[in-house]
Amino acid sequence: MHKEITIIGPGLIGASLGLALKRKKICEKIIGIDKSKKNLRNAYLLKAIDERRATIDKRIKESSIIFICTPVSLIDNIVKKLSDYTEKNQIISDVGSVKNIFEKKTLKLNDKKFSLVPGHPIAGTEHSGAKNAFNSLFEDKWCILTPIGSNKKSVRIISQIWKRVGMKVATMKINEHDKIMSITSHLPHLIAFTIVGTAFNLNIKKKKELINFAAGGFKDFTRIGSSDPKMWTDIFLKNKGFLKDTLSLFLKDIEKIKKLLEDEEYSQIFRLLKRTKQIRNIIIKKRI
Amino acid sequence: MHKEITIIGPGLIGASLGLALKRKKICEKIIGIDKSKKNLRNAYLLKAIDERRATIDKRIKESSIIFICTPVSLIDNIVKKLSDYTEKNQIISDVGSVKNIFEKKTLKLNDKKFSLVPGHPIAGTEHSGAKNAFNSLFEDKWCILTPIGSNKKSVRIISQIWKRVGMKVATMKINEHDKIMSITSHLPHLIAFTIVGTAFNLNIKKKKELINFAAGGFKDFTRIGSSDPKMWTDIFLKNKGFLKDTLSLFLKDIEKIKKLLEDEEYSQIFRLLKRTKQIRNIIIKKRI
Repeated sequence: MHKEITIIGPGLIGASLGLALKRKKICEKIIGIDKSKKNLRNAYLLKAIDERRATIDKRIKESSIIFICTPVSLIDNIVKKLSDYTEKNQIISDVGSVKNIFEKKTLKLNDKKFSLVPGHPIAGTEHSGAKNAFNSLFEDKWCILTPIGSNKKSVRIISQIWKRVGMKVATMKINEHDKIMSITSHLPHLIAFTIVGTAFNLNIKKKKELINFAAGGFKDFTRIGSSDPKMWTDIFLKNKGFLKDTLSLFLKDIEKIKKLLEDEEYSQIFRLLKRTKQIRNIIIKKRI
Repeated sequence: MHKEITIIGPGLIGASLGLALKRKKICEKIIGIDKSKKNLRNAYLLKAIDERRATIDKRIKESSIIFICTPVSLIDNIVKKLSDYTEKNQIISDVGSVKNIFEKKTLKLNDKKFSLVPGHPIAGTEHSGAKNAFNSLFEDKWCILTPIGSNKKSVRIISQIWKRVGMKVATMKINEHDKIMSITSHLPHLIAFTIVGTAFNLNIKKKKELINFAAGGFKDFTRIGSSDPKMWTDIFLKNKGFLKDTLSLFLKDIEKIKKLLEDEEYSQIFRLLKRTKQIRNIIIKKRI
């Protein structure tokens, strides 16, 4: 059992982690740090954290592990700030959806001022903030760790924590993670955000009924498209490189099917669609 | 209670309708017509139909209502075929996802050789065929009718049937239906089919694990993208006009956000995403 863990930014992910750490008796005391008094209060009332702080200061020395659960654009700066107080045996981890977010300067401090274990628990809902947290958020989901340097012991400790709160853990390279996420998460979100806007700009009489008439497709899209805008602006920009590449490939494929539609190429469209179904079957079968 | 209703193409929708008609005691006897012996057998074993036929013939005269539940490309021809035997008091309805599918020649026969009530119950799963049918498929979903001509009594009868199997019924013009469906259903399906292919063409080591790492977004897409390829090729081609227009608008919006990403226009991206969230809230609130 860890004596003290700090969670910086105890929102949906951070506060759910706090709740899970307590439920599984992984930690005696949890510190929450947040600039938002309201969110901090919510996390405290929910008992996701035991102590509230507004700033990072020398008291952080007491925590053996620090989880950064803020939007991705803030993580690198927070690590730098932490390094003013931390020592090399203290583990810093994060939950960001993009992993190529650390400056060289920051990475150079690894193993000297702290032990950095970047992580990404693939869990969440379209709701945000501590008020929406729950302790089973991570169960049966995947967590990806993208270790840097040679701090195997720290990686093992962070891996064990995620496993104990119910996750399956995989490790991969930073670029591999960011590329995979660009297609499985970031591009679908970009599309979902966009298509809801497109729909609303359409000249339709019964606009307010759009969602009533949406079986599957659009309803899923509006749910995805209602995720936190700040968080997603950050993710899109931080993973700009891979997202742009993936988007370009997708647009090429869309142009291809658009052309086939124009030319009424029935059998070619059918073949494309059938292939998708086969791909899905392959993916799903290999899952086991 | 109707004496006899015929369901042509008792697949997922048709066989579920058969089951619901029986459960709600709307009809004494249900005839199923299908070229596929296997599907017809499944529908019969499931007791979605009471009698099996391979062809449309003069026996159709006994049915007061005929539901055509085949892929949309076949519907117009089937109506023509039916008109060899039907009389003007017999109601022909369908469940197609596109409504602008009838030739002028066919429409001219309306009120003379049959009473046509085009319909679209917005229900379904990614599975197809009678073997996946279930009697509660329609509950609490919307059904859109797009009446033509002046056969109000027939519209009322079809409307009542869908209501009795649990649906909310709306009527609108054919073009309005096809435009709305192009954004709420057809474009999302086109995108979902496409993006699964894009993902599989990506140069990723752990391709088989793509789906494990897909939180929300991609998983929904692969589910949508696994729908029946024949049915969807038909839908895309039959609603080509509106689908192309909607796709063009969507692509313009995507290009806009792509440009913003390239230029790292943080606040503009944030504003776009925030607007989507607001739109969703508007749509959802107005839903009540």
